[in-house]
Amino acid sequence: MAAAANGAGGGGGVPRPTNPMVTPLLTDLYQFTMAYAYWKAGKHLDRAVFDLYFRKNPFGGEFTIFGGLEECIRFIANFKLTDTEITFLRSAMPTCEDGFFEYLSSIDCSDVEVYAIPEGSVVFPKVPLMIIEGPVAVIQLLETPFLSLVNYASLVTTNAARHRLVAGKSKNLLEFGLRRAQGPDGGISASRYCYMGGFDATSNVAAGRLFGIPIRGTHSHAFVSSFMGLDDIIDRTLASSDGSNKCEDFVSLVQNWLARIKDAGSLRGTFRETNLSELAAFTSYALAFPNSFLALVDTYDAAGIRLDSGDLAYLSVETRKFFRAIEEEFGFIGFGKMNITASNDLNEETIDALNKQGHEVDAFGIGTYLVTCYAQAALGCVFKLVEINKQPRIKLSEDVSIPCKKRCYRLFGKEGYPLVDIMTGEDEPAPKVGERLLCRHPFNESKRAYVVPQHVEELLKCYWPGTSSEPREELPSINEIRSRCMGYLDRMRPDHMRRLNPTPYKVSVSAKLYDFIHFLWLNEAPVGELQ
Amino acid sequence: MAAAANGAGGGGGVPRPTNPMVTPLLTDLYQFTMAYAYWKAGKHLDRAVFDLYFRKNPFGGEFTIFGGLEECIRFIANFKLTDTEITFLRSAMPTCEDGFFEYLSSIDCSDVEVYAIPEGSVVFPKVPLMIIEGPVAVIQLLETPFLSLVNYASLVTTNAARHRLVAGKSKNLLEFGLRRAQGPDGGISASRYCYMGGFDATSNVAAGRLFGIPIRGTHSHAFVSSFMGLDDIIDRTLASSDGSNKCEDFVSLVQNWLARIKDAGSLRGTFRETNLSELAAFTSYALAFPNSFLALVDTYDAAGIRLDSGDLAYLSVETRKFFRAIEEEFGFIGFGKMNITASNDLNEETIDALNKQGHEVDAFGIGTYLVTCYAQAALGCVFKLVEINKQPRIKLSEDVSIPCKKRCYRLFGKEGYPLVDIMTGEDEPAPKVGERLLCRHPFNESKRAYVVPQHVEELLKCYWPGTSSEPREELPSINEIRSRCMGYLDRMRPDHMRRLNPTPYKVSVSAKLYDFIHFLWLNEAPVGELQ
Repeated sequence: MAAAANGAGGGGGVPRPTNPMVTPLLTDLYQFTMAYAYWKAGKHLDRAVFDLYFRKNPFGGEFTIFGGLEECIRFIANFKLTDTEITFLRSAMPTCEDGFFEYLSSIDCSDVEVYAIPEGSVVFPKVPLMIIEGPVAVIQLLETPFLSLVNYASLVTTNAARHRLVAGKSKNLLEFGLRRAQGPDGGISASRYCYMGGFDATSNVAAGRLFGIPIRGTHSHAFVSSFMGLDDIIDRTLASSDGSNKCEDFVSLVQNWLARIKDAGSLRGTFRETNLSELAAFTSYALAFPNSFLALVDTYDAAGIRLDSGDLAYLSVETRKFFRAIEEEFGFIGFGKMNITASNDLNEETIDALNKQGHEVDAFGIGTYLVTCYAQAALGCVFKLVEINKQPRIKLSEDVSIPCKKRCYRLFGKEGYPLVDIMTGEDEPAPKVGERLLCRHPFNESKRAYVVPQHVEELLKCYWPGTSSEPREELPSINEIRSRCMGYLDRMRPDHMRRLNPTPYKVSVSAKLYDFIHFLWLNEAPVGELQ
Repeated sequence: MAAAANGAGGGGGVPRPTNPMVTPLLTDLYQFTMAYAYWKAGKHLDRAVFDLYFRKNPFGGEFTIFGGLEECIRFIANFKLTDTEITFLRSAMPTCEDGFFEYLSSIDCSDVEVYAIPEGSVVFPKVPLMIIEGPVAVIQLLETPFLSLVNYASLVTTNAARHRLVAGKSKNLLEFGLRRAQGPDGGISASRYCYMGGFDATSNVAAGRLFGIPIRGTHSHAFVSSFMGLDDIIDRTLASSDGSNKCEDFVSLVQNWLARIKDAGSLRGTFRETNLSELAAFTSYALAFPNSFLALVDTYDAAGIRLDSGDLAYLSVETRKFFRAIEEEFGFIGFGKMNITASNDLNEETIDALNKQGHEVDAFGIGTYLVTCYAQAALGCVFKLVEINKQPRIKLSEDVSIPCKKRCYRLFGKEGYPLVDIMTGEDEPAPKVGERLLCRHPFNESKRAYVVPQHVEELLKCYWPGTSSEPREELPSINEIRSRCMGYLDRMRPDHMRRLNPTPYKVSVSAKLYDFIHFLWLNEAPVGELQ
C-alpha cells in the first residue's frame, strides 16, 4: 500500500484520494438527478453492472497502459457525503424530496464490488479495465470521478511508456512538465504516472514527496543571467568532499584551467569567447554543488554548445568529442563520459529523429509534450451499463457496448507473447491451456480464429469485494507498478509496439457471448423504413 | 473576494489556494537548488524583477484571456514552508548547509511586489501579464507555481471565449468536460475558467459549490437503458407544481398522448416506433423532474432524433419543425420553442460548421475539446529575469526577452478600439491622450508607427504591494471577472477576433526602451567567427 497522503482515511485502512478535492461532489450533476429519478421510481437499489473501457488506443498506437486504479479504490473506500455537501445538494436540487437526501447521506460503497485489471498493465480497446457492480444509484455517482481519475492517468502513463520505448532503456528520462501541465494536479499526476510509465525522475518536488519519486534539477537561465561577472562571487573556497583538502580560490582555479584548455594543442580553436556572467554563474553553482554540477549552457549564444532540438544531435556529438579531448589531453579519467542532458521541447518524434541522426545525449528532460499529451490531449474511457438485475443491457447507437457481466482472459502463444484477449459470459468455463478455442470479433462475423493457448491469465481481479466473499487484491507500491509495467511492455510482440504502422492486438469474445450479443442486438434494434 | 475554499488563510485575509495541493513544494527542484546557490554566493537577497509573459497566442488566434491571477495571489499571501516540508527538503538536498534551511523556513512573501493585468483581460504576446519583484531566491521559488497556475487557466479561458465568440451571445453554453479533463483539478479549473471565459454553466457539482457557478444536468444513456419497460414505473401519480391538481396515472396519460400524436393529421408519418424502455425512462424522469424535463433521445436509434455532430444541423431543424407542428396541432403555446441541446464531441469548428449549415440548437454542451484544449494543449508562459539590483538583464538565445522593469499601456483610437500596447521603461512619462507617440516593434527596426491615443489605460495594477506603499487592488468575484472579460471582448476590433486569418494586434516599445534593448543586445551578443 502506497503512503497515505491525507491520513489513513476511513475505508478499511485505505487512504483518502491523493487530491483532497476528489470528493463525492466531484461528479456531473446528472448523476445526482438520475439518482433522484431512480429513487423516485423505487429503482435505486437495482443491482447494476457497469464496464469502464475505452474504444481506441491513443497516439496512433496499438496499446494503452492502465493508470488511476489506486485513486479509484481510495475514492470508494472513503466515499461518504458530508452534511455540508448534502446541504449544498439540497440547494442545487430544490424540487427533490427530503427522503432522497436522507438516502444520499446514508450511502457508502460497502455494497459495491470493483474488479479491475492491475494498474500498469498493457490494455486494449473494448476490454473492461474495471467492472463495477452495486446499487444503480450509487454506481452512477461513481461514473464521473472514476473516469476523471482513469482517463488522464492512463493517457499520460501511455505517453510516458511510448517515450521510454523510443528513447531506449539506457537513457535517463526526466519529467520536467509541471509549469506547462493542465493545472497543479495535472502536474502532480503527470509526475506520478510518467514515473509509472518508465521515467526515471521528475523535477516536481511535491510529487517527489507525495509518491517517493526521485527528483532532479539544477538551474535555469535566470540563474545564469543574475550574475554580472566573477566579482559577484564572494566566498571562493571549496573543500573536497571528505574535508581532507581545501581550495582557497576556486575562481582562480577555474580561470587557470580555462587558459590551459584554450592553449592545449588538441583543443585549439574549439574555445573562443567566454561570457563572464555565464562563467560566474557556473562557477558559483559548482561551489554550491561540487558533487552534482550540471551547467545549463545556452543562456548566451556565446557558449559553444546550445541544447536545442534542431542542432541537438550535432551539438551533443561535438560536446562528446570535446569532453573526450579533455580526458585525453589532461588525463582526467571519465571526463569523456560526462553527462549530456537535452531538454528543449522534446517529444517522441524528436527523440526518434535524434536516434536516426545519431547523438550523444545521455538524458532527456521532457515537459510540455509529455504531460499535456499534446499529440492527443484526452483518452475517451466510457462507463456503460451492461447488466441490471441480472438482465443484460446493450446501448446500440453509435458505438455498441458489449452486454453482460463478463470475465476477461489474455491468451499467450508458443513464443510467450500475448496473442489475443477474450471476453466470456460470467458463467462460462475459463479457457484452458492446450485446448482449442474459437475467438470471435465481437461485431464482425467474418473475423474469427481458433487459438490453442499455452498460457492463460484472467485479467480482472477483485480490488473491492463489497459484500461478496472474494479476497481483496492489495494495492502495490508505485515502484512495483512501474516494474510490472516495464515487464508487461517487454512481453509484448514488438510489432504491436512499434511507432510506425503497429499491428493491432486482437480483442475477441467467446462464441457464446458473440451469439448472445447478436440476439440482443436484433431484439433491440428497430427495422428502418426507407421513404 | 471570492469565497474561501480552504478557510481564511494567513495572508492578510486572503484565502489559501483553492487546491490544497498548491504548496511551496509544488515547484521544480531547481528552484531550491538555485536558491541554495544564491544563498551560498550571498546573492539570495538581491532585488530581482521577473516578467511573466507568453510569446504566441494559442489556437491560431490573435488574442489570449489572462486567467489564474487570484490563485497566484492566494498562493503568495499564504506562502510559508512548514517544518515537515523543510524536513523533506533536507533529505532531498543532503549536501546543503543547515543555515540554508533556516533561511528557507524564514521566507514569506511580505517583501514581494506583484503587479498584474486584471484577470479576465484580453492580453497579447510579450507584454508582461505579471511583474514580480523581490529577493531573487524567493521569486525563483514562485516561478513554477505561478506558471502552473496561469498557463492552463489562461489557455482554457481563451478556449472558452473562442467558443462563445463562434456560438454567439444568444446560445446557452454548458461545460461538460469533467470526465475527460486532465485529472480532477484539471476538471475543476476548467469549470471555473470556462465560466469566466463566457460559458453559462457547468455539469461539475464540486466546481458549482466552490465557485458559485450555475450547474446543469439531466440524465445519461445508462439511465435510459436501465429501464425494461413501462412496468418498471411503480408510482404513477403526478401533482401539479402548486399542488392544486393531481394526475393519478401519468403513464397512461403519456400513452394516450402518444396515440393522439401518432393519429394527428399534420404529424402522420413522423412517428414510427417507440422503444418502450426509452419511453419508460423518459416518463420516469418526467415524474421526478416535472418542471425541468429534458430527455436524452439517442440511446436507441429508434428515437427519431439523434443528437450527433454529423446530422446535428438537419436533426435540430427537423426537431424544431416537429415541436412547432405539435404546438399548432394541439395549441400548446410555446411548445415550438422547446429547448434543443446538442452535446456530442463539439468544438469551435463544429459549431462554426453548424452555423454555416443552419441549425435550431439552443444550447451546446461541450466537453473534451474545450477542457483539454485539444487543439493546443499548452500555453507557453515564461518567467524571465529582466532586472537585478537595478541592473537590466537580457536573455539572448532563441527568444530575446525585453529587459528592465517596465510600465505597460494600452492605447485606444478614435473609434474606441484598442490600437496598440506599448511598454516603456519604469521612469518614462506615461503616454498622454492627444499627444503623438512613436511605437516601435521591439526587435524589428523597420516596424514603427506614430499613434495619437484618444484614451490610455495603464495595464498592470498592484495586487501585492510587499513593502512598497502602493495600494492593493481588490480581487473581484468570478462574476465580475466574467463580465469584465465579456466587456473587453466586445471592445476589440472584430478583425483581431475573427477565426480565419485574424489581424495581429500590435505590441510595441517606446523609442527609449527600443534603443536600450539594442544597446544591451549588442553589448552581450558575441561576434561569431565563420570557419
